[in-house]
Amino acid sequence: MAQPTLAVVGATGSVGTVMLELLSSRRNVWGEIRLLATARSAGKELSCRGERLTVRELTPEAFDGVDVAMFDVPDDVSREWAPIATARGVTVVDNSAAFRMDPDVPLVVPEVNKDALRDRPRNIVSNANCTVMAMMMAIAPLHREYGLRELVLASYQAASGAGQVGVDTLHDQLSKVAGDRSLGSRPGNVRQAVGDDLGPFSAPLALNVVPWSGALEPLGWSSEELKLRNESRKILELQALKVSATCVRVPVVTGHSIAVHAVFGSEVTADGARQALRGAPGVILVDDPEAGEFPMPIDAVGTDPSWVGRIRRAMDDPRALDLFVTGDNMRKGAALNTLQIAELIAAEMK
Amino acid sequence: MAQPTLAVVGATGSVGTVMLELLSSRRNVWGEIRLLATARSAGKELSCRGERLTVRELTPEAFDGVDVAMFDVPDDVSREWAPIATARGVTVVDNSAAFRMDPDVPLVVPEVNKDALRDRPRNIVSNANCTVMAMMMAIAPLHREYGLRELVLASYQAASGAGQVGVDTLHDQLSKVAGDRSLGSRPGNVRQAVGDDLGPFSAPLALNVVPWSGALEPLGWSSEELKLRNESRKILELQALKVSATCVRVPVVTGHSIAVHAVFGSEVTADGARQALRGAPGVILVDDPEAGEFPMPIDAVGTDPSWVGRIRRAMDDPRALDLFVTGDNMRKGAALNTLQIAELIAAEMK
Repeated sequence: MAQPTLAVVGATGSVGTVMLELLSSRRNVWGEIRLLATARSAGKELSCRGERLTVRELTPEAFDGVDVAMFDVPDDVSREWAPIATARGVTVVDNSAAFRMDPDVPLVVPEVNKDALRDRPRNIVSNANCTVMAMMMAIAPLHREYGLRELVLASYQAASGAGQVGVDTLHDQLSKVAGDRSLGSRPGNVRQAVGDDLGPFSAPLALNVVPWSGALEPLGWSSEELKLRNESRKILELQALKVSATCVRVPVVTGHSIAVHAVFGSEVTADGARQALRGAPGVILVDDPEAGEFPMPIDAVGTDPSWVGRIRRAMDDPRALDLFVTGDNMRKGAALNTLQIAELIAAEMK
Repeated sequence: MAQPTLAVVGATGSVGTVMLELLSSRRNVWGEIRLLATARSAGKELSCRGERLTVRELTPEAFDGVDVAMFDVPDDVSREWAPIATARGVTVVDNSAAFRMDPDVPLVVPEVNKDALRDRPRNIVSNANCTVMAMMMAIAPLHREYGLRELVLASYQAASGAGQVGVDTLHDQLSKVAGDRSLGSRPGNVRQAVGDDLGPFSAPLALNVVPWSGALEPLGWSSEELKLRNESRKILELQALKVSATCVRVPVVTGHSIAVHAVFGSEVTADGARQALRGAPGVILVDDPEAGEFPMPIDAVGTDPSWVGRIRRAMDDPRALDLFVTGDNMRKGAALNTLQIAELIAAEMK
């Protein structure tokens, strides 16, 4: 078969932009690349693999001749359009939350559960949540070594997780608060300086942390927190995994971090954990606090792997590890993992 | 007895400044207030209770006639000078870490373990670490209700925890990164914009989170993380309490936050926890995510209580609660608690 045709649905969005960058820099396995977006963006020219490509409107016919489509669009758009694409013979790799928990849709992180790709009755494959992804890269090798039982998670999530509007909002707010050295030391003055434009966030993000991300679910949980539980269980095939998470937005542009407390079925050592992570695909071990080496967003941004460090055995539980993980939520957390899955599907088509 | 004489040691520091503000706004129980600092600051005039006071040099003689001294100075200065003060009959309330774990020094949070004040053979009382303090206000009422067994903690600590130089460093860095919308989206460009002046931090704080705070202790722990374990155990008199903590510095001026996963001896409910916290002294309950109500530094700064919210019963453990706490690390976390202890000692002297 000739090289397969790829469609990028949501090509003009912030994740779509990273998809095009990655397509331009990775080993090419694609024939035609077709960029699709809403009517508003149709006609726009974007660069990919050194070519200028014109964005086409998302229509059913636009999928004719497409082999694989990567979707990065809101949940409801995926829910409507993925079945339209699959009806035309397209294999869909979807980065929304629309199908992640569908038992007929595999939820795939190639380094962790590539085999789950085999069984995809709806011809849709889901990409995991960006925070789950960063964490999973570190946790899967440790699970293989020690047998995971429980996760207690606290996240430090970047503005770009809320899209380009999130990034723009944070930069706008930074411009408003910079230069006034009284801000943040008195009640209310950051709110006053930032004003009413909170963008996609429920509170000012500059000089603040916001313990909320996503939509309200029953019993006070946020949708983001439930994704950490449900998607971790599905990816690791551990239906009894205990997970508690608190998701917090921080004034960082890109790079989601997670403080992880992981309890295993057998005793752990920090050195054994480092050993398991040192060889793991898609992981960088940065664990020398004295030398200032620990995972941080400003270093992980723009890179592919999950950065893992601060590895300690819990002082009061020989079966538990504490660690800190940072990953680029736009790359491995979104565009890169989607493309990795698409490439695996392309390889099947050879 | 006449109203007791109070000395403020470290009066010109950032916590000292808050101490003077609080002394000016709270019900006055003091006769003379004497401000002490290093020779460098001696002669400086500061305002307190509407009076102009001249800072005196810290000498042994400066303690003559003093009844109670509040110390906010580095650990080594406290270690040297607190015994000099007590030898002259002064009761010392110390905000450093120098004596906190000394079995002959009570570690007191008035709302939690006021009775521990009674037994102070060295005539020194210690003030807890600022992160411990914020968290303890929320945890103590829940412990009384349900019997605490285990804490898993992740912190979001403000720049002012590293002193005024921390605040200045953050503001300087914000000025350098504001206005350039490419920053934080590419590897290394925040480091480049911030430059080499990291102040008291081991990495740039603007547009970043730094999973390190304090000094390196054995097995990869930071001193800040061990304080959370050791001081919680001492204050609650729970020597077997299991504690795992990861301490992270965030680009916030003032207001330490903590994501808390607390496991108890008996089953919990979120409503029961809210009930226990609603009436608790020094606690504000802000727990309505749909209305945008959760604890945040920009709201808690400049206020006395710990702000507590995001209260959820763990989905996989009926004995565990997840919650989020924010407190002003300069007030309850430092100056306020020190002054509350000093006021209790003043009351004994009546």
